[in-house]
Amino acid sequence: MRDTFHQPVDAARVPRFAGHATFMRLPAVGSAEGLDIALVGIPWDGGTTNRAGARHGPREVRNYSSLMRSTHHVFGTEPYKVANIADVGDVAVNPIDLLDGLKLIEAGIADIVAKGALPLSVGGDHLTTLPVLRAVARNRAVGLIHFDAHSDTNDTYFGDNPYTHGTPFRRAIEEKLLDPRRVVQIGIRGSIYGPDEHDWAKQQGIRIIYMEEFAARGPEAVMEEVRAIVGDLPTYVTFDIDSIDPSMAPGTGTPEIGGFSTREAQQMLRLLDGLNLVGADVVEVSPPFDVGGMTSIVGATMAFELMCILARQVERQRAVSAA
Amino acid sequence: MRDTFHQPVDAARVPRFAGHATFMRLPAVGSAEGLDIALVGIPWDGGTTNRAGARHGPREVRNYSSLMRSTHHVFGTEPYKVANIADVGDVAVNPIDLLDGLKLIEAGIADIVAKGALPLSVGGDHLTTLPVLRAVARNRAVGLIHFDAHSDTNDTYFGDNPYTHGTPFRRAIEEKLLDPRRVVQIGIRGSIYGPDEHDWAKQQGIRIIYMEEFAARGPEAVMEEVRAIVGDLPTYVTFDIDSIDPSMAPGTGTPEIGGFSTREAQQMLRLLDGLNLVGADVVEVSPPFDVGGMTSIVGATMAFELMCILARQVERQRAVSAA
Amino acid sequence: MRDTFHQPVDAARVPRFAGHATFMRLPAVGSAEGLDIALVGIPWDGGTTNRAGARHGPREVRNYSSLMRSTHHVFGTEPYKVANIADVGDVAVNPIDLLDGLKLIEAGIADIVAKGALPLSVGGDHLTTLPVLRAVARNRAVGLIHFDAHSDTNDTYFGDNPYTHGTPFRRAIEEKLLDPRRVVQIGIRGSIYGPDEHDWAKQQGIRIIYMEEFAARGPEAVMEEVRAIVGDLPTYVTFDIDSIDPSMAPGTGTPEIGGFSTREAQQMLRLLDGLNLVGADVVEVSPPFDVGGMTSIVGATMAFELMCILARQVERQRAVSAA
Amino acid sequence: MRDTFHQPVDAARVPRFAGHATFMRLPAVGSAEGLDIALVGIPWDGGTTNRAGARHGPREVRNYSSLMRSTHHVFGTEPYKVANIADVGDVAVNPIDLLDGLKLIEAGIADIVAKGALPLSVGGDHLTTLPVLRAVARNRAVGLIHFDAHSDTNDTYFGDNPYTHGTPFRRAIEEKLLDPRRVVQIGIRGSIYGPDEHDWAKQQGIRIIYMEEFAARGPEAVMEEVRAIVGDLPTYVTFDIDSIDPSMAPGTGTPEIGGFSTREAQQMLRLLDGLNLVGADVVEVSPPFDVGGMTSIVGATMAFELMCILARQVERQRAVSAA
Amino acid sequence: MRDTFHQPVDAARVPRFAGHATFMRLPAVGSAEGLDIALVGIPWDGGTTNRAGARHGPREVRNYSSLMRSTHHVFGTEPYKVANIADVGDVAVNPIDLLDGLKLIEAGIADIVAKGALPLSVGGDHLTTLPVLRAVARNRAVGLIHFDAHSDTNDTYFGDNPYTHGTPFRRAIEEKLLDPRRVVQIGIRGSIYGPDEHDWAKQQGIRIIYMEEFAARGPEAVMEEVRAIVGDLPTYVTFDIDSIDPSMAPGTGTPEIGGFSTREAQQMLRLLDGLNLVGADVVEVSPPFDVGGMTSIVGATMAFELMCILARQVERQRAVSAA
Amino acid sequence: MRDTFHQPVDAARVPRFAGHATFMRLPAVGSAEGLDIALVGIPWDGGTTNRAGARHGPREVRNYSSLMRSTHHVFGTEPYKVANIADVGDVAVNPIDLLDGLKLIEAGIADIVAKGALPLSVGGDHLTTLPVLRAVARNRAVGLIHFDAHSDTNDTYFGDNPYTHGTPFRRAIEEKLLDPRRVVQIGIRGSIYGPDEHDWAKQQGIRIIYMEEFAARGPEAVMEEVRAIVGDLPTYVTFDIDSIDPSMAPGTGTPEIGGFSTREAQQMLRLLDGLNLVGADVVEVSPPFDVGGMTSIVGATMAFELMCILARQVERQRAVSAA
Repeated sequence: MRDTFHQPVDAARVPRFAGHATFMRLPAVGSAEGLDIALVGIPWDGGTTNRAGARHGPREVRNYSSLMRSTHHVFGTEPYKVANIADVGDVAVNPIDLLDGLKLIEAGIADIVAKGALPLSVGGDHLTTLPVLRAVARNRAVGLIHFDAHSDTNDTYFGDNPYTHGTPFRRAIEEKLLDPRRVVQIGIRGSIYGPDEHDWAKQQGIRIIYMEEFAARGPEAVMEEVRAIVGDLPTYVTFDIDSIDPSMAPGTGTPEIGGFSTREAQQMLRLLDGLNLVGADVVEVSPPFDVGGMTSIVGATMAFELMCILARQVERQRAVSAA
Repeated sequence: MRDTFHQPVDAARVPRFAGHATFMRLPAVGSAEGLDIALVGIPWDGGTTNRAGARHGPREVRNYSSLMRSTHHVFGTEPYKVANIADVGDVAVNPIDLLDGLKLIEAGIADIVAKGALPLSVGGDHLTTLPVLRAVARNRAVGLIHFDAHSDTNDTYFGDNPYTHGTPFRRAIEEKLLDPRRVVQIGIRGSIYGPDEHDWAKQQGIRIIYMEEFAARGPEAVMEEVRAIVGDLPTYVTFDIDSIDPSMAPGTGTPEIGGFSTREAQQMLRLLDGLNLVGADVVEVSPPFDVGGMTSIVGATMAFELMCILARQVERQRAVSAA
Repeated sequence: MRDTFHQPVDAARVPRFAGHATFMRLPAVGSAEGLDIALVGIPWDGGTTNRAGARHGPREVRNYSSLMRSTHHVFGTEPYKVANIADVGDVAVNPIDLLDGLKLIEAGIADIVAKGALPLSVGGDHLTTLPVLRAVARNRAVGLIHFDAHSDTNDTYFGDNPYTHGTPFRRAIEEKLLDPRRVVQIGIRGSIYGPDEHDWAKQQGIRIIYMEEFAARGPEAVMEEVRAIVGDLPTYVTFDIDSIDPSMAPGTGTPEIGGFSTREAQQMLRLLDGLNLVGADVVEVSPPFDVGGMTSIVGATMAFELMCILARQVERQRAVSAA
Repeated sequence: MRDTFHQPVDAARVPRFAGHATFMRLPAVGSAEGLDIALVGIPWDGGTTNRAGARHGPREVRNYSSLMRSTHHVFGTEPYKVANIADVGDVAVNPIDLLDGLKLIEAGIADIVAKGALPLSVGGDHLTTLPVLRAVARNRAVGLIHFDAHSDTNDTYFGDNPYTHGTPFRRAIEEKLLDPRRVVQIGIRGSIYGPDEHDWAKQQGIRIIYMEEFAARGPEAVMEEVRAIVGDLPTYVTFDIDSIDPSMAPGTGTPEIGGFSTREAQQMLRLLDGLNLVGADVVEVSPPFDVGGMTSIVGATMAFELMCILARQVERQRAVSAA
Repeated sequence: MRDTFHQPVDAARVPRFAGHATFMRLPAVGSAEGLDIALVGIPWDGGTTNRAGARHGPREVRNYSSLMRSTHHVFGTEPYKVANIADVGDVAVNPIDLLDGLKLIEAGIADIVAKGALPLSVGGDHLTTLPVLRAVARNRAVGLIHFDAHSDTNDTYFGDNPYTHGTPFRRAIEEKLLDPRRVVQIGIRGSIYGPDEHDWAKQQGIRIIYMEEFAARGPEAVMEEVRAIVGDLPTYVTFDIDSIDPSMAPGTGTPEIGGFSTREAQQMLRLLDGLNLVGADVVEVSPPFDVGGMTSIVGATMAFELMCILARQVERQRAVSAA
Repeated sequence: MRDTFHQPVDAARVPRFAGHATFMRLPAVGSAEGLDIALVGIPWDGGTTNRAGARHGPREVRNYSSLMRSTHHVFGTEPYKVANIADVGDVAVNPIDLLDGLKLIEAGIADIVAKGALPLSVGGDHLTTLPVLRAVARNRAVGLIHFDAHSDTNDTYFGDNPYTHGTPFRRAIEEKLLDPRRVVQIGIRGSIYGPDEHDWAKQQGIRIIYMEEFAARGPEAVMEEVRAIVGDLPTYVTFDIDSIDPSMAPGTGTPEIGGFSTREAQQMLRLLDGLNLVGADVVEVSPPFDVGGMTSIVGATMAFELMCILARQVERQRAVSAA
């Protein structure tokens, strides 16, 4: 069966700048049928309260993902040999109608889930994670490992609008898509709307690890706690690019200085290995505010790191099944 | 009374880079009370089907409008001596809820109109002109002089969405805000959705002057026809920055090459002098896609040209009243 | 048969920023089999003597070609209804070995020609036109309509190197791929290496229309002469983006001020209608030197104009065949 | 009294991109009357020896300060509830006459001081700190906490010019505005004019903490020493944005690699809490050399951090007064 | 003697990106001794009232002048064969002291004049032309052909400052460096400070050809008048890059839309041929505000055009001398 | 003798933006005769497999090296007082012919070596280090300290091409220019072509210190091992700018996130002091992909650090000779 796994274009034969831009230079396929992991774009920023542009994220992350080679240099993992992975294109979106947009995204991801593939999506603003969770957590609440500068658990904006990129995880908890005691947020920082902004989240049981605590304890200690919080149960990983410092990822709608270095972020993502993941995403890459493609490169590399973690999980599960 | 007219900061005393950025360096005032012309921002791009960013237009047009001096070098008009003009700030907007956004914009402009001032707004995407027309043409249909690369008279997008920046003038005609026989569009060009895309508009009686016709006839002949079409009745002027060539105004959501030069555009705007205008706007300046502020400079200068035309109209009307 | 023609994604249903970037949002297909016109990229700048980067041209022209709609607004032509057109991907290239690169490009285009499709390629530097001509003019010399700031008929560079982007048309004439009396160059300008730089070309019979002559006579008169020169015999069209003024197309390796406006260029390309074309290209779009994608938009639009001309030719020929 | 404190626009009601750009979205007021803290711009770079542009700093820092929310997430401080703060506009400047410029700046800040407000200024080049010190230290020498890549204690430039952005602190000590034994400079680095460049400063008693020492000891140890040096006596804080690494703050006239991370800088500024401050500034933000507004975001955030420290001081002093 | 003329590096042997950046790739020489034409930089913008940066002009114009080849394609002139030309470096400047700056520039140009060479300088802001005129018109008033968006004949700024880039030609007339009846300004446009702003200039006898008149009459008719105005007497040519449209030359301090196209400008400069020139300059290229080097390319090409005109004059004069 | 050493222009007298751009503002000299250290550019990227542009590196590094002052602030070393250093220009290159390019570069460096100077070159892509090593290690294999994100020890690309910037050190070992047991690579990271990509290098005895190991051990411990590996024997230092994090050095062809900070890199370069170096280089600065000159500043500073190390070695050796 592994002989039929999709393989990326080889950069030692076809230069990276050649050919259509797909995620990781993998084949573009029409559906997730037969895939273990589906790379999918969600070109939608309908929930953005300030600077839009994340709708252009999937295209540019695809573009710069041509820089990724085939093997993870720390794990030694060859993801395309242990899992069947492809680029299934973008889910349908509606840039004009927020509620229709949410439905279309949920449907797109639900189709991937229904075909048995793990969705690894590239946004899109952070509100896209809500319909993704509606698709992956339809039957039971899941845990969440959430890298971000912002908690995204506010209630409403601009009157009583419940759906923005500042509210998805409040909605997800209200909709019982997430088990709040298995939700952990890492990297939260920056000025806030009021001293009680995070009270609701904490009352639900969410563990917020502010940047200051992270800086004091370091990636290893923090991730040990994170792993303890989510345990072995199904967990989703969401990576907001604004968790990274704006010097490394300037192309995002709501930058906050003092963020993770990419080195810290890579170290944390690698420490996700061995968990029980139901999907992952990289969101808030906003090319119109990027400079020199720096943010898209970071986004593509984070997607590569997550893809390798998912591929290793597929490999383990296949080994168990085979045994 | 003229002694109390608002005056801009003098660049020969206070350098242009100093001070808060307001339109034309005019005072920021709380309402249009007592104004002849109200400069107002509409920071909203909720109708944008492709590249958003016009929400940032008012701020950057204000920023670059610091380059405008106090006198029109061709007319010799000193607008701030013949009309009371100020920056009334931005209308309220809702970036998340399209229908609420339309209502808020209409209310903001209606307040200006109610106070007896002519609104000169800076968008925002072209859908903003619909609620502006709802405010200025509440009582009777007006004529329209429409500079644009696109007719913006399509019906629906993304299913059956009636409100986008590709549809405002179809809605305005349906709502009887515009008299289609007094609507003229200049500069239309670029690939279209189908050979019948403009049939509806033409059937209503809209006169479309394609770029090719404009290039053959020149600004003077075209504007003579335009003036004949709208006549002496109340007329609104809408200037989409994408009517200008993208080399001169790259910062816009839907660029089409082969556009007006700024020289042609200035010549045309000056030929609006003497008409009976009820307001005007400059729309679709999208700073995230701009390079070096070029588009904002063009937008600011077009707003200055329109302001001078409106000020001259105020001056004439005041002379008539005084007589 | 027309029911099976490839169709682009409809921007009124799927927004332009969504989906994989292919030429004109057409399907990516594996070969030119069954096509009338093959859109193909040549990501190679091995012949560049100064500023490289045209290797990235195909990808960015694809990206910005999402802005093209389905119908030509002047001709009313719907290219995808009268011709079967698709994106066949990029030809193989070798960024390290010039001679191997030339062979690979020739082979890629020859395959398109062999399958009966007209190649419309997007470069790549201007040396790519040499192997293209080797493929399309294998059996008989063709005419050439050449829009450019430079004659590209020099002999050698950096010692005795015969193959650079400054020499392709000298080589093509020497190789009898071009009939020099049916070669016309339009837009030539800028400082030159010596007063005799163009003597060889003129001695061969090439007609050089310098920018100054073009400016004096205008597009219509010039194109009338061009059409007379090439006549009804097979002719290739090559469009160097540096023929366009650098303010409109800054992203190119050898900019020369005082170039065509895009309006002039579009007018000229439309006047190619009715000729007997064997293929066409747009070359020297160099994204690393572009600002805000301006050059890629121009390149994509010029490719759209050429595609419509080719589609109209296909339609005429099919009508003749059917008669 | 607190009911009358100025409040910023609320981003959950009015989006950040809307409205005039003022510091922290606070009201623009005509004078410092009644304020505890006056945010003021100094748009002047008359002392710049290399790359000018800091004259544009206040406008862009205002622009990006729209990203600041109302509460400090570590202290929990709500600055606008404990102190009356507003944007008093820019001081008058003269871009053509250096000595007149120095006088105008001093007068502008002296007016703020006379009205009992703490000045928090945004430059402008570092020479602006000299006239600020003339205003705040008119009656007695103050201490200085100075974050910078450069000591700025040189003597003269370009012949015998005593006033440049490389000399302000030498002048300030000569003018007895600073008590050199209470001056500490942190982050000094980069190539120097000669091995004795800092000798004069050290001889005066200035404590220079080079970047290498900072890197070895860390923010906490360094700030403990800094606090001991300045003690409880009146102290001014000056923050040169080039103390930050150029990857995080590229928009400055004299970048030096190897600078502070923003995380380190924020940590240090928070450790200023409890000192006896007479004012503060952020200088050398040069928008023409910035990329993507990165430097202006950093400048705005540093100003926010300093404002919170000053607000906490106001709160403490008011509590003491009330007791 | 011609065997000893300086020659530029040959781009067909050494690529344009190689080697030190000098004007036109000519040798850098220590003095103007033996030169017919001295290319010289004036890196100074001390007179700039708004956006500084022209101090960086000489370096970037040098950089992009590598694109110039050795022969003028219209005249067929080979400037380096008919005149001895070199890059004499930059005159000394003082960025901190305006009056000292003026003296240094005058001294630098006076040295060139004393050695018998024609100065062709690259600024720097337009105030640099005043000390240049002090050097070249020391003994008798000269005529002036002045391409610009602005008349630059204002009196004072920021109080009573007589020296800014808005005042040089008023000062030059007061100092009897210019014969006002032989001064012609072409391209003037944009908003002005008052309806009487140009009255003084006109009263002196200056002929102002506004852009609108230029657009109506065209380059040939305008230049015929210009040539008649200056006649055969000694004349200086000053070319402000902001005379060019900002779409073609965005990198300048005071952009005004509706400017010359480069094609128009080149046509006008070529019509200077045969006049009696005493020097020329290109000013106000401001790299920090440029995009993609577009303005520096235009500046370099305008300098090349002027250099060819000067070289042809040298050739004629040498022929006369030899006869 | 020291009286005759070349000295850079003094920035306290002549501003940094003035004058021709040479390395460190040193004199441009015709040959390495009499020099201790020759700063030389290698404007060539013929070996680049993905994004070209390093050919423009020398010019921009020269441009930004104007920011360097004369003294190292940590060592207190004044390099221009202890060593005779100048800018010898660029070696000849051939952008069209790879093998000719390699020969020309080798010849250029060999000439420097023959004249007794230490070459400090600025590339250019990393393939340029191969001909440099052919020149400096002609007589005996040397050691190598190699800072890079990539091992550059692959075998072939695009068929059987042996010479690319991914292969130089494999070739150098095969050619016995390097003693593999004295080769150490630091900073290697990023996805790889296969789990065995580095096997060949390790089998030769190369010590690869991956970024993860570096991050765990720190600069001091790592450099202690590095110094032990190379010992006292002749050693070359090659610094690929992509070893630095892309946030600090975005302008490079093959960016990999998670790189060195400049602070770490400076610390490591300073720990090279006391070794026995035969030359050094900084490569892969690619200005077309840079933003705001950030990468060129880093490249210039790294060259300054290396130059100081080499100057200190010259000083020591001269002291020994004198003894």
